Amino acid sequence: MLRKMKVKRVDLETEGVKVVVLNKKDAADMDLDALDRIILERENGTSATAIVNLTERFIKKGEIGLFKETYSTLGAKDKEKIELVPSKKPESIRYIKDKLNGQTLTAKQINAIITDLMEEELTDVELTAWVTATYIRGMHRQEVVALTEAIVGSGPTLSIAASRIYDKHCIGGVAGNKTTMLIVPIIAAAGLKIPKTSSRAITSPAGTADCMEVIAPVAMKKDEIERVVNRVNGCIVWGGAVNLASADDKLIKVRNPLRLDPQGMLLASILAKKKAVGATDIIIDIPIGKGAKVNTKKEAESLAREFNLIGSNMKLNVHSLITDGDHPIGMAIGPSVEAREILRILAGEQVSPELKEKACQLAGVLLEISGKAKDGKGTKLAHSLINGGKANKKFREIIEAQGGNPKIKDTDVTMGKYTHTVKSEEKGKIEHINNRKFLQ
Amino acid sequence: MLRKMKVKRVDLETEGVKVVVLNKKDAADMDLDALDRIILERENGTSATAIVNLTERFIKKGEIGLFKETYSTLGAKDKEKIELVPSKKPESIRYIKDKLNGQTLTAKQINAIITDLMEEELTDVELTAWVTATYIRGMHRQEVVALTEAIVGSGPTLSIAASRIYDKHCIGGVAGNKTTMLIVPIIAAAGLKIPKTSSRAITSPAGTADCMEVIAPVAMKKDEIERVVNRVNGCIVWGGAVNLASADDKLIKVRNPLRLDPQGMLLASILAKKKAVGATDIIIDIPIGKGAKVNTKKEAESLAREFNLIGSNMKLNVHSLITDGDHPIGMAIGPSVEAREILRILAGEQVSPELKEKACQLAGVLLEISGKAKDGKGTKLAHSLINGGKANKKFREIIEAQGGNPKIKDTDVTMGKYTHTVKSEEKGKIEHINNRKFLQ
Repeated sequence: MLRKMKVKRVDLETEGVKVVVLNKKDAADMDLDALDRIILERENGTSATAIVNLTERFIKKGEIGLFKETYSTLGAKDKEKIELVPSKKPESIRYIKDKLNGQTLTAKQINAIITDLMEEELTDVELTAWVTATYIRGMHRQEVVALTEAIVGSGPTLSIAASRIYDKHCIGGVAGNKTTMLIVPIIAAAGLKIPKTSSRAITSPAGTADCMEVIAPVAMKKDEIERVVNRVNGCIVWGGAVNLASADDKLIKVRNPLRLDPQGMLLASILAKKKAVGATDIIIDIPIGKGAKVNTKKEAESLAREFNLIGSNMKLNVHSLITDGDHPIGMAIGPSVEAREILRILAGEQVSPELKEKACQLAGVLLEISGKAKDGKGTKLAHSLINGGKANKKFREIIEAQGGNPKIKDTDVTMGKYTHTVKSEEKGKIEHINNRKFLQ
Repeated sequence: MLRKMKVKRVDLETEGVKVVVLNKKDAADMDLDALDRIILERENGTSATAIVNLTERFIKKGEIGLFKETYSTLGAKDKEKIELVPSKKPESIRYIKDKLNGQTLTAKQINAIITDLMEEELTDVELTAWVTATYIRGMHRQEVVALTEAIVGSGPTLSIAASRIYDKHCIGGVAGNKTTMLIVPIIAAAGLKIPKTSSRAITSPAGTADCMEVIAPVAMKKDEIERVVNRVNGCIVWGGAVNLASADDKLIKVRNPLRLDPQGMLLASILAKKKAVGATDIIIDIPIGKGAKVNTKKEAESLAREFNLIGSNMKLNVHSLITDGDHPIGMAIGPSVEAREILRILAGEQVSPELKEKACQLAGVLLEISGKAKDGKGTKLAHSLINGGKANKKFREIIEAQGGNPKIKDTDVTMGKYTHTVKSEEKGKIEHINNRKFLQ
């Protein structure tokens, strides 16, 4: 038997489901356990589903503690009486169990899971079971397509005024790999739209967003990003500030503790972010090598094929370039030194030729796809856009549009306070630097 | 950089890991995310590991909210300053990931998981990943043995003064299946020790503990159970009140939401409870049938073989009896009516012959193992212990020892307030009753 309880506000957030706290004695009377679901009903008819937590003293008998999300969703008042009604589990739990049992999920079922996730109907236990099952069982291509579409649908999407929109992504795992900071100005300078969202450091000492932030603000809202890209063709912003593909962040919360990267979820996570910015043509950088995330050419080719096939299913034109990820790239690792390096390359200084060449190859693919360069001539065009100063000019337009100082010089970048010089104990030439040594 | 924070007590329990709450701004400054682990250190040197939760207002900057388990473990005072130190993840997380990747875990690794679980070092996310992986990957026999031993080691064990100790278990799924209430008095009347712990309702309207509670108290502590069994040979108590095999309850918390019953965990859970009461000889009732948990004879035989083999590995003498679980057994379903039925059977009334016969068959196996009956004569001896009144006398000794009224009559049992009669619309004979209709 459930009944009426007096609301007590608890100003605690939970990152996920809505939580209520009951006195253990009340819960026992109502035959409720920790993590059970109940429906809360206000007299005016508004209602919400929440998960039960238990306490011995914090909440007295007859009271119900509502965590922040719960009372704001419900619009409840302190000391108001609300009714507790038993709740069924959300339907998507059945699909999670199906996945555990080895079944392939339909688009409708995957969509139901993501919808329940977004409506905070799933507990960490249920979500983790799904992610774990996906990790072990793998995902069929149709499941990845469905998950990508569902993730795109979970957040807003950008509106950029262009028929073709370009984007790039790197699988990661290579220290110093800041090609985005060159590719965006090259592509934008060629007159193409490239609304680039980047992450902060995940697997390296500096994410592209961290690096760009040294030069210009990167935390921008959807309408600001649209305005910047419509005006100057490109941007380099932090994806975390704009709520695109937001189901992805909720999945990452339970994927992180065990570093669970089911390939299908990885593909969906990447492609959803591209689709959400409106990208039509995408170049994926797949570095291979001992320290990188992908270790063999075979593995890289299989991943490239998956990207291509899943892209086709979603009407995305996805190209991949398999690159050398055996060692760090460029001469700098860390936000400030990387930002300085980029400013020097764009200013025409002869530094880090390997980094410049790689960025031009990746940009070159997009230039060829777009028709701006003939087949086989993309890399050359990219180099000439840097060497002729057009990319530098464009980069400064982007900096200004994002709210930074367009006149910034490489010497303006402030360096960290502490330095440490490592001296070799022997004479010789460095033959190899292990990427992993720079990654967490 | 971590630092000193002012303690704020939060009188909330979490069933699992120790929790602290930080202001989101402080967490961002310290580069901490929700679910990260930190070590809390008091000035006197005591320390504890806890999991980070975030809040915007409930905890102010500079404060740290300690949930009940956290401040009691730490012995912290309100407003005291404590230091926050980064914490590594417990080693067992690596083993959980190994299991996800399909590796067989060693006894040492499984023990590490259970130790971390008992020390509340694992979050629900980590624990769920392990249970899910175990569900999908299965468990090798050696893993089940190791898990059983680890679960036994997670709680106290009973000390009963006898070289052989008997026990029984039913896989469940059959409504009205209260054979324990007959087997315990039969075995105890034969002069053998049978310290029986039972559960409350899980898959049926009445657990044996619920049914016994109609007649006598069932919530007893370890030393009370030992005293009762040493005095009158047997008991029927609620396992939940005595902390035997306590890791099992923690596993059940994450198994319940998705009803995850990995066979290996089920076997370990059952055998750990038997081993923890000191059992040496065990009879397992495996009902098969359409409504029951086990559906085919083949499945039942395979389960019986597993019980036997894992038992041997642990020096437990485990026998199984495959029984008919196609329909409810006896003439009553529900605590009070079942208790009344048992009192009638023990008093020698000719009711529910099928239930009586089944209980005598199961008890018979134990009587034969013990040497109290010759091979093939166990069932007969069990019947004669009921028919001659010895089991009834013993049952009343047990009721008295547990604190109930030994003179209780079947007519003393109070029935529920509401009744509802279902009238058949046609004449005929009932040919089959579906078990599932009585189960949740």
